[in-house]
Amino acid sequence: MDTLADNSNNDRTNKIRRLEITDKSKGFIELLRQLTVCDSVSDKDFEDRFRELACEGDDHVICVIEDSDTGKIIATGSVFIEKKFVRNCGKAAHIEDVVVDADARGMQLGKKIIEFLIDHAQSMGCYKVILDCSAQNKAFYEKCGFKQKEIQMVKYFP
Amino acid sequence: MDTLADNSNNDRTNKIRRLEITDKSKGFIELLRQLTVCDSVSDKDFEDRFRELACEGDDHVICVIEDSDTGKIIATGSVFIEKKFVRNCGKAAHIEDVVVDADARGMQLGKKIIEFLIDHAQSMGCYKVILDCSAQNKAFYEKCGFKQKEIQMVKYFP
Repeated sequence: MDTLADNSNNDRTNKIRRLEITDKSKGFIELLRQLTVCDSVSDKDFEDRFRELACEGDDHVICVIEDSDTGKIIATGSVFIEKKFVRNCGKAAHIEDVVVDADARGMQLGKKIIEFLIDHAQSMGCYKVILDCSAQNKAFYEKCGFKQKEIQMVKYFP
Repeated sequence: MDTLADNSNNDRTNKIRRLEITDKSKGFIELLRQLTVCDSVSDKDFEDRFRELACEGDDHVICVIEDSDTGKIIATGSVFIEKKFVRNCGKAAHIEDVVVDADARGMQLGKKIIEFLIDHAQSMGCYKVILDCSAQNKAFYEKCGFKQKEIQMVKYFP
């Protein structure tokens, strides 16, 4: 299906919510694997990281969409709040690790994830929300209200 | 002066260190104003934000270079550590808010700041360090070991 209109039950079946500790067994790590390397996460590693992030409260939020038919996590994204001195001790939100399952594209789940993360950033009093994306995904983020600003530079450690 | 060679005392006079709570009176906010909007930061706002960031310990570090002749902060940059699930519960470092005083350019202070932040990211076990910059500053970051990867998108809140 290509649009929300194709599935009138979409809003009911695909609720968006924060990540829960039981989501590892619902395919959360397998979903992230569609984005980048994520090959070996033990239950203990997952739970430790989950609890570390939980300590950050609203300053680091991961949201997911669970398919209520299959019980699988089919979309996710995260946002964290950076406290700055610039902008009069302002706060900036960073969106990271957005992915929609390859079998669940065309249902506007990505848009729903981004809107959730933007709303959270705004509710936290941020003056801006930023993200890095490929040139291929630029048009999608423009539809979500973003504009291109700078270039992203990266240095990987061996 | 245009190079380090012009000032053999540079290493001695321009020590790099972490931000201290007394740095507001040494021109830290005025320096940030060369980067972006930062017009009204009271002593209390500064101290509150300083203490909030101090709670994050090594997960959020701001470094500064103080000119020992004038006692002024002449360069700064920050790095914070994002805890992820991808990359096997990896960590990514984000460099932000790098600025060198307009009167202190050409002394490689920017390079010194970036090297300090990269070293910190690596010591924290990050798999990568990223930053966003203008096309104009791309060559500088390439000299520091970075490569261009994606594009940065931004949405400002009213």
